Amino acid sequence: MHIRHDQLEVRTHGKGLCEITDDVQSKIDKSGVRNGIVAIFVRHTSCSIVIMENADPTARRDLEEFFDRLVPEDADYFTHDAEGGDDMPSHIRMVLTRTSETVPIVDGKMQLGTWQGVFLFEHRRASHRRNVLITIMGE
Amino acid sequence: MHIRHDQLEVRTHGKGLCEITDDVQSKIDKSGVRNGIVAIFVRHTSCSIVIMENADPTARRDLEEFFDRLVPEDADYFTHDAEGGDDMPSHIRMVLTRTSETVPIVDGKMQLGTWQGVFLFEHRRASHRRNVLITIMGE
Amino acid sequence: MHIRHDQLEVRTHGKGLCEITDDVQSKIDKSGVRNGIVAIFVRHTSCSIVIMENADPTARRDLEEFFDRLVPEDADYFTHDAEGGDDMPSHIRMVLTRTSETVPIVDGKMQLGTWQGVFLFEHRRASHRRNVLITIMGE
Repeated sequence: MHIRHDQLEVRTHGKGLCEITDDVQSKIDKSGVRNGIVAIFVRHTSCSIVIMENADPTARRDLEEFFDRLVPEDADYFTHDAEGGDDMPSHIRMVLTRTSETVPIVDGKMQLGTWQGVFLFEHRRASHRRNVLITIMGE
Repeated sequence: MHIRHDQLEVRTHGKGLCEITDDVQSKIDKSGVRNGIVAIFVRHTSCSIVIMENADPTARRDLEEFFDRLVPEDADYFTHDAEGGDDMPSHIRMVLTRTSETVPIVDGKMQLGTWQGVFLFEHRRASHRRNVLITIMGE
Repeated sequence: MHIRHDQLEVRTHGKGLCEITDDVQSKIDKSGVRNGIVAIFVRHTSCSIVIMENADPTARRDLEEFFDRLVPEDADYFTHDAEGGDDMPSHIRMVLTRTSETVPIVDGKMQLGTWQGVFLFEHRRASHRRNVLITIMGE
């Protein structure tokens, strides 16, 4: 049984989903692990890791629009706004989604379904460099 | 340390929660693992895995009603509707819940609390055959 | 490779976030594991485990206020109310957040980002004793 940690730096360009499926798979290839799990963990509180439909870009746009309506910027009861109107909504969107995701590995491949992709979901308006930890456990 | 992957096929009958607790426990029994974790991963983007109250069916109905109101079908800004009015809401409900869940195993048993059950949460109106991967790691 | 299960009892005092980061880290220290993952699992259906901004208390208050508005008590369509108006909302808030969280361990330390803390999110009005299972896998 091996445990390998690796890092991924993801450059985001404002709110929205960035697919990282191939980057995660590359780390698994490099690890040599054929059978186990991969845990994908984002080290921030204003973006998320989600598994989402990866075929049709309209699905991603509708998802982003839904979150903009569900957690609007500048709600009058927000007091945590040191970094601007998208500060507090970014934490709420993160809590409503996920900080980590765990995916099985069989024969060296992440066992995603046909339409599943792994995405970093950026909740801030500005560009950010995001740090994602990839932990691979298996043999 | 052993790693065992197994599959579960879940037949759903429209929107709602299907309990799979006993099916997951059977896979653990079969694996012989007494001590470790089980990762439950659904290979679709229009249904979820959740842990939920498993005693009172009214709790499940209220939950389904809440999600129907939170993510209504046919919102006028949805553009991803190739498969009908429940297409885009199903992806959003999945992102708001979970694709995977990890549960500790002690003495061969999932360590759920008294009122916890593992459920597949179907978000589509039609019947579906859903594929769930069960990964058991331990000794 | 070792697997260690440990328990944490968390005393809550009504709705809100209780930080448990140091308690989880103590269990890792005690286990002697330097390299692996920790799975944090709460054995209840009316509270959650979340990773959240841990520096500014106003962020936590705004989050609690958001959830009070998103899942109001005593919605007229709730039928599951045996334990009062905060009964059904507590299950919904749990489903919208998480029952477990998985964090990488490197050099004996949880690899949280600068602003991340691990929290138990209590959804009931009354005080509760909450049982959290900490599973540490690694070497």
